Amino acid sequence: MEAPSSPPPKKSVALSGIAAGETAICTVGRNGDNLHYRGYPILELAQGCAFEEVGHLLIHGRLPDEAALSQYRQRLVEARGLPHEVLVTLEHIPAATHPMDALRSGVSTLGCVLPEKDEHGTAGARDIADRLLAALPSLLLYWYHFSHHGRRIDTATSDASIAGQFLHLLRGQPASPEHIRALDQSLILYAEHEFNASTFANRVVASTGADLYSCICAGIGALKGPKHGGANEVAMDVIARYDTADQAENDIVRRLGEHEVVIGFGHPVYTRVDPRSAVIKTIAQRLGQTGGNPRLFEIAERLESVMLREKGLFPNLDWYAAPAYHMLGIPTALFTPLFVIARTAGWAAHAIEQRGSGKIIRPTAVYTGPDERHVPAIEERSA
Amino acid sequence: MEAPSSPPPKKSVALSGIAAGETAICTVGRNGDNLHYRGYPILELAQGCAFEEVGHLLIHGRLPDEAALSQYRQRLVEARGLPHEVLVTLEHIPAATHPMDALRSGVSTLGCVLPEKDEHGTAGARDIADRLLAALPSLLLYWYHFSHHGRRIDTATSDASIAGQFLHLLRGQPASPEHIRALDQSLILYAEHEFNASTFANRVVASTGADLYSCICAGIGALKGPKHGGANEVAMDVIARYDTADQAENDIVRRLGEHEVVIGFGHPVYTRVDPRSAVIKTIAQRLGQTGGNPRLFEIAERLESVMLREKGLFPNLDWYAAPAYHMLGIPTALFTPLFVIARTAGWAAHAIEQRGSGKIIRPTAVYTGPDERHVPAIEERSA
Repeated sequence: MEAPSSPPPKKSVALSGIAAGETAICTVGRNGDNLHYRGYPILELAQGCAFEEVGHLLIHGRLPDEAALSQYRQRLVEARGLPHEVLVTLEHIPAATHPMDALRSGVSTLGCVLPEKDEHGTAGARDIADRLLAALPSLLLYWYHFSHHGRRIDTATSDASIAGQFLHLLRGQPASPEHIRALDQSLILYAEHEFNASTFANRVVASTGADLYSCICAGIGALKGPKHGGANEVAMDVIARYDTADQAENDIVRRLGEHEVVIGFGHPVYTRVDPRSAVIKTIAQRLGQTGGNPRLFEIAERLESVMLREKGLFPNLDWYAAPAYHMLGIPTALFTPLFVIARTAGWAAHAIEQRGSGKIIRPTAVYTGPDERHVPAIEERSA
Repeated sequence: MEAPSSPPPKKSVALSGIAAGETAICTVGRNGDNLHYRGYPILELAQGCAFEEVGHLLIHGRLPDEAALSQYRQRLVEARGLPHEVLVTLEHIPAATHPMDALRSGVSTLGCVLPEKDEHGTAGARDIADRLLAALPSLLLYWYHFSHHGRRIDTATSDASIAGQFLHLLRGQPASPEHIRALDQSLILYAEHEFNASTFANRVVASTGADLYSCICAGIGALKGPKHGGANEVAMDVIARYDTADQAENDIVRRLGEHEVVIGFGHPVYTRVDPRSAVIKTIAQRLGQTGGNPRLFEIAERLESVMLREKGLFPNLDWYAAPAYHMLGIPTALFTPLFVIARTAGWAAHAIEQRGSGKIIRPTAVYTGPDERHVPAIEERSA
């Protein structure tokens, strides 16, 4: 594989450019524009595989053959149901809750009811990874429908894929093969990205020997942060502001003149292009042409050329994911939870790898506080 | 403050000796044997303060005067009650659940019902930190009594302190001032320890701008790991194995001969002595003399001298915390959750500090996986 061309350390990033460990799972941004999962180029994976194959690759270490894939799909279908205790918890999470908080709580309580066995080995962790991959759409959409519409949905569908189950549960009826494949490909693109903040949080937890649920909860919490997972939601807000491409162009040029940052462009690791963008753009375009909202795609595409012309910036994965998800009928608030469903495959692979390394992650700090001082008696303190 | 005498990097620790950021909260192990919270020596804090004063120091940045302390205690007393939705969740967490999983789930669902306001500032985060400090004993012991004894306890007690409330809820009746102070001092000792793995996990989550509940959930998950928070539970198992000090000495000498590691001795950061050990040893001794189990203390003390003589190792905080907690009538499974109650003050301080730095924590990795390779067609793969 090519030698890395390290970008210079970023001031807004702690540990920028510092290796915190070894990984055999992913390379990102080598030569400024590529991404590989276990050596396979992201474009080949997105074009030639289903998300379940990529999940198997990440969690179990290899692309499955036909028999293994069929068996794996069956395992995932069987793990969609949720225990009664978890359903009760979900029913008591208010509708106003941030969906990421609901998801974190669902995962945490599932970890109480169906805990990881054999916490020191990897078989138990891989079992839980598969279970979570299968159960996350159930957790999210059971809570969503109950809290928003008072409906108790049956999460144990027979859809062959995670993408199919997600759209089925969301809409209450099976989705078309085109829609399922569009979502499926997006999940492949979001599945893994080396030592990003949520993956790293998940690895720090794993480094103490904690169970996989604890690791994934940390990942969800980190991904919730507005500096991390929420970008496709913000991109949607930007695109949805406009009725026409011309209006969008005029307004964004004005905003750029006022030094506003447009979310969805540029990337901390990729310097030339986000290799995932071409795939998700094609998906969004096709959805626009086949019953979706072609104007939404036009606006997004126009703003891509404006951002290139005015700022030299390229769109990242989040930019076209936003209109694609919108045209699939997915509420904006569920964009980041979908990111969780995809990234859980990567998080789990990293947690298992970190645990296997036997190392605890424990950096040090530069102290900037007060010098040694005595504790004053309480009556001598000032408020 | 003294210049640090950095210990050599440890092979079993990733990022060992690497600064992952700045902190004004804590120094640990400078000169091999000391610990300061915001410049104050741990011995002075443990001898001169209540845990609430130390919580205020960590979370709000300064030791309170009398009026501020009284107001702070009142705030904490008022935040002990739990919302109905959280009680229902706790009632559906099985008795066999790891108490740390129950606590993580309680915190996560509390974050759904009473979310952090103003996620980008610090006032909201400090409010949540105080609420969690007050509510953690309630969460833990409501679940504990309901799952183990089918009892719904009233968590809104009028005890003046967190230690007092904990023992009151655990036992069903108010504890003696001596017992309350013993627990209170131990919480001060456990409250903060710089960039240890759980605090660092919590900081990585905070670095994305996530809410405080998400950060604390990550801390709980990391502390649960057997390489991190569970040491005082293991120390208890060791001490409880023996009926007499002589029997303990003989058996440990034999085990050391077989290269067994005895948990509760030595420390990754302290090289000469754990400064917290003397305080907790005095507590354990006093509890043994005043109605506790003096033989338990004798066994612990004998093993301290055996470990020094045979291995040159000193006891760390966990060693005497174990018999102290046991003599306070605390079940061993609740030792690590007590650590959570104490450390939440430190975690919250670090999360707020990290968020304030504006930096996201995003290291890189050394790639050790396969070279670039093509995705084989599914019929060409081997299982």
